[in-house]
Amino acid sequence: MAIVLGPNQYGKAENRVVRIVRDTPRHEIHDLNVSTALRGDFAAAHTDGDQSRVLPTDTQKNTAFAFAKKHGVTSPEDYALALARRLVEATPAATGAAVLVEQYAWDRIMVDGTGHDHAFVRRGGEVRTTEVDLSAEAAHVTSGLKDLVVLKSTGSEFKGFLRDDYTTLPEADDRILATSLTARWRYADRGRVDWNSAYDDVRALLLATFATTYSRALQETLYAMGRTVLEAHGEIAEIAFTAPNKHHFLVDLAPFGLDNPGEVFIAADRPYGLIEATVTRDDDA
Amino acid sequence: MAIVLGPNQYGKAENRVVRIVRDTPRHEIHDLNVSTALRGDFAAAHTDGDQSRVLPTDTQKNTAFAFAKKHGVTSPEDYALALARRLVEATPAATGAAVLVEQYAWDRIMVDGTGHDHAFVRRGGEVRTTEVDLSAEAAHVTSGLKDLVVLKSTGSEFKGFLRDDYTTLPEADDRILATSLTARWRYADRGRVDWNSAYDDVRALLLATFATTYSRALQETLYAMGRTVLEAHGEIAEIAFTAPNKHHFLVDLAPFGLDNPGEVFIAADRPYGLIEATVTRDDDA
Amino acid sequence: MAIVLGPNQYGKAENRVVRIVRDTPRHEIHDLNVSTALRGDFAAAHTDGDQSRVLPTDTQKNTAFAFAKKHGVTSPEDYALALARRLVEATPAATGAAVLVEQYAWDRIMVDGTGHDHAFVRRGGEVRTTEVDLSAEAAHVTSGLKDLVVLKSTGSEFKGFLRDDYTTLPEADDRILATSLTARWRYADRGRVDWNSAYDDVRALLLATFATTYSRALQETLYAMGRTVLEAHGEIAEIAFTAPNKHHFLVDLAPFGLDNPGEVFIAADRPYGLIEATVTRDDDA
Amino acid sequence: MAIVLGPNQYGKAENRVVRIVRDTPRHEIHDLNVSTALRGDFAAAHTDGDQSRVLPTDTQKNTAFAFAKKHGVTSPEDYALALARRLVEATPAATGAAVLVEQYAWDRIMVDGTGHDHAFVRRGGEVRTTEVDLSAEAAHVTSGLKDLVVLKSTGSEFKGFLRDDYTTLPEADDRILATSLTARWRYADRGRVDWNSAYDDVRALLLATFATTYSRALQETLYAMGRTVLEAHGEIAEIAFTAPNKHHFLVDLAPFGLDNPGEVFIAADRPYGLIEATVTRDDDA
Repeated sequence: MAIVLGPNQYGKAENRVVRIVRDTPRHEIHDLNVSTALRGDFAAAHTDGDQSRVLPTDTQKNTAFAFAKKHGVTSPEDYALALARRLVEATPAATGAAVLVEQYAWDRIMVDGTGHDHAFVRRGGEVRTTEVDLSAEAAHVTSGLKDLVVLKSTGSEFKGFLRDDYTTLPEADDRILATSLTARWRYADRGRVDWNSAYDDVRALLLATFATTYSRALQETLYAMGRTVLEAHGEIAEIAFTAPNKHHFLVDLAPFGLDNPGEVFIAADRPYGLIEATVTRDDDA
Repeated sequence: MAIVLGPNQYGKAENRVVRIVRDTPRHEIHDLNVSTALRGDFAAAHTDGDQSRVLPTDTQKNTAFAFAKKHGVTSPEDYALALARRLVEATPAATGAAVLVEQYAWDRIMVDGTGHDHAFVRRGGEVRTTEVDLSAEAAHVTSGLKDLVVLKSTGSEFKGFLRDDYTTLPEADDRILATSLTARWRYADRGRVDWNSAYDDVRALLLATFATTYSRALQETLYAMGRTVLEAHGEIAEIAFTAPNKHHFLVDLAPFGLDNPGEVFIAADRPYGLIEATVTRDDDA
Repeated sequence: MAIVLGPNQYGKAENRVVRIVRDTPRHEIHDLNVSTALRGDFAAAHTDGDQSRVLPTDTQKNTAFAFAKKHGVTSPEDYALALARRLVEATPAATGAAVLVEQYAWDRIMVDGTGHDHAFVRRGGEVRTTEVDLSAEAAHVTSGLKDLVVLKSTGSEFKGFLRDDYTTLPEADDRILATSLTARWRYADRGRVDWNSAYDDVRALLLATFATTYSRALQETLYAMGRTVLEAHGEIAEIAFTAPNKHHFLVDLAPFGLDNPGEVFIAADRPYGLIEATVTRDDDA
Repeated sequence: MAIVLGPNQYGKAENRVVRIVRDTPRHEIHDLNVSTALRGDFAAAHTDGDQSRVLPTDTQKNTAFAFAKKHGVTSPEDYALALARRLVEATPAATGAAVLVEQYAWDRIMVDGTGHDHAFVRRGGEVRTTEVDLSAEAAHVTSGLKDLVVLKSTGSEFKGFLRDDYTTLPEADDRILATSLTARWRYADRGRVDWNSAYDDVRALLLATFATTYSRALQETLYAMGRTVLEAHGEIAEIAFTAPNKHHFLVDLAPFGLDNPGEVFIAADRPYGLIEATVTRDDDA
């Protein structure tokens, strides 16, 4: 069997693009972390060191910054689509491009009850994400969020599970449920999407469903969140979750003469449960 | 010259104490990272391995969790003072204790326009801190915040600076000013402080002053922030800042036929300017 | 279209298993980070909150620690295979399991020229990895390393690349080439593999090939490394690389009257080139 | 009481200086992270925004890179001393400077049993550090290391400690002792020090003493390590340690019918004991 080149791609990762919109005295800020990658017929670069088909990663970086000016950043999705198209057009050997964007949110600083024109404080919390995958056939947009840390202080149980010789876990009637959520939803139909309002709405649906769903396991909560999103957003084809179960263990205070009815917990680091689930549509149904 | 033990202390760091207040169906959450340390005459533990005067760090941990129940967490300052007193009382050889608390903020999840009773989303952004230092003579409380990331997209210059043979920096009339602020303010008078409202007010003053001060250097901005806080809060003796200058460099888009009047920046990681300054009161003035 | 559950799995991540072998006074240490995941028919847990088929992640954790005793850790691959088999056997609904192991290396502390019996210093540098994927059909073992940071101070160029309107990069005749390598190689034939010696040999081949290959691009270097490994190890089916190009930029010292013939560089953080490539075997060749 | 400026300093942090010595085909690499700070009379910069006395942090950065060429990096201490002197000389308002250097070690890649001329692999493990503090009166050099992770699998106990109402810890006859050591030693006499050989020797003494000292507490081990260093190195005035007690808890395998005589541990993240101790010389003794 001959030794050959398999799947490969290359690009520039983590371009920290900050775009200030200053057409009026009331500035806006778009704070992005942009990664690009090209795939296609780049075999000669690997096997012969021939770079003649390779658009340098430095050029990909330049394009990411130039497009923040030339095309603008009305939404990360729109910007990523334009950037992906440009990179493929500029690279004859490319059959596709992937552009990943993280967006960090900022709030205006409040002064005397009003948001300031050009002073901002970083919001923290979750990061908005998008991944554009462009090929000759299609442009897929998968948007999402990560690091959305949520917690319920009641309304969560875990019981009736399978037991084997290594099972010591007691059943829990009332526990803390907490996770640092990553969600990624793929748009089926790009034509009619208002990227920013769709993001805001999906985020709100995820949070509200987490809050109001009685949880018999993190799996059940994730599925409910996904179903709610798909029911409300016909333009979304599927949604995938990665959810570390951030364990909060009840501390035994009995040795100190204190009871602890769900009041004092230790937040644990490692290990953690890791639940991954996709909610999708059944074409045959 | 004999070899002797010098300054020393020991304790338990980063106890992740989570306290749920569930006296009513509307729960509250206090999410803390607690570190304790004892100092005093612990020489025998070092020189002879004699632990008879040493309250174990495991016990310090237990006390931190037990006090979250027994004493409660109305504020990190109040909790830290109680914990420090207990640790010193329990350890005859101790001459002092230091308790550091970080507090992570959570918001209620909004459901139909109302904050949910027992579901929360971590706010992100800055971390509230306090450091209590207790000795036989006094209890010092130094509160603060860290990781408060702020940015001004205009209203900042840097010029007229000293030049030498290694100076290449051009003067800047209009630049981005950004920092990830750490501030620590020491209370002179603990008797009359409402810890939570003091924190909220200092944070608001820091942000508003950052926003509204024209900046000829980060040093000037920090000093203005400190002065504002001391003027408004007679109970605060001094305030110290650590402020990395998070550089945002204007990207040269001229090679691509684009101008860039303060619109597209690259956010740099390292190196960064690091400005440290204290604003205090002059007893003689 | 109905809304249905898509791909899903669950497990316990980052169990920090430390196994001391103390059958003789000369101890050995195996320091692991173990993550497990089960997949199969767990739909009821998601859709109905029914946990009766779910082996808790807590049980998976217990099994990981118990197997460090019961089965031992002669190699991470061998341990992961045994653990994966147990988890699938214990869970009737499971159709497969994935076990990921990171191993941290320790050296004996040298005392008077001899390695100590029971005192160790962590080596740092790269982390050894393995991923076992067990299903009814097969057990795939993909071993590797990550965080192997390598650098060549000469013997690297980058020129002759594609140029477009956004290309400003000058050609480089002699540059620093550096990366933090992740490599993962899949074994085709598990029957005859000595996991530990195979790991040592692949690591040595990767390093030696990196050192001795003149590089016209990181792509060329990666391909050469992969080819060398596949040529020497018939039991390896393919090898995949993820290699951030850790840029070292030559500093312009001319303003200070100093030349800089490849002597002083600034190591940059972000952005970075990111090269991904797989070297495999062509079954048809 | 008037509001006034208190202690302050400013500089450029984390300049990633990489110096290649290529005078011969056998290259050497010095990989540094350099932070500088100036202190003195910079009040006008804070109170009036007057930068005329302020040498920009950008200039400090330029100087750090230029001195890697002009002065060279035979040792981090020697380089830091030269850089500190230059910065104070260039800044009339400065009364002192602090220069911190971290050095990352690289090994030559082995090819056919020989270290390669210009290909290196980063060693990992501990980072070598130095802090030079220069004032009109003196130049203090405090060198050290951090992230030196060491572990003893036996030869460590912890018993006979103080107990109170919150003490639940059982006594331990045989436990794992592990820490990630930070050590900083201040040189009393700079005149006769060979910085590199001193570093190597202190590191070796710390490791050997850790290995060979029976430990009745981490405090005792640290003190023994410090005493050994001071006894062997008359040029060192004192040594300070920061040592997190990286807990390894014995896992209870009894529920699974397995005994666990010191063989299987879980390495915990947080909380951790934190022991800080200084060993010094008594001038009066």
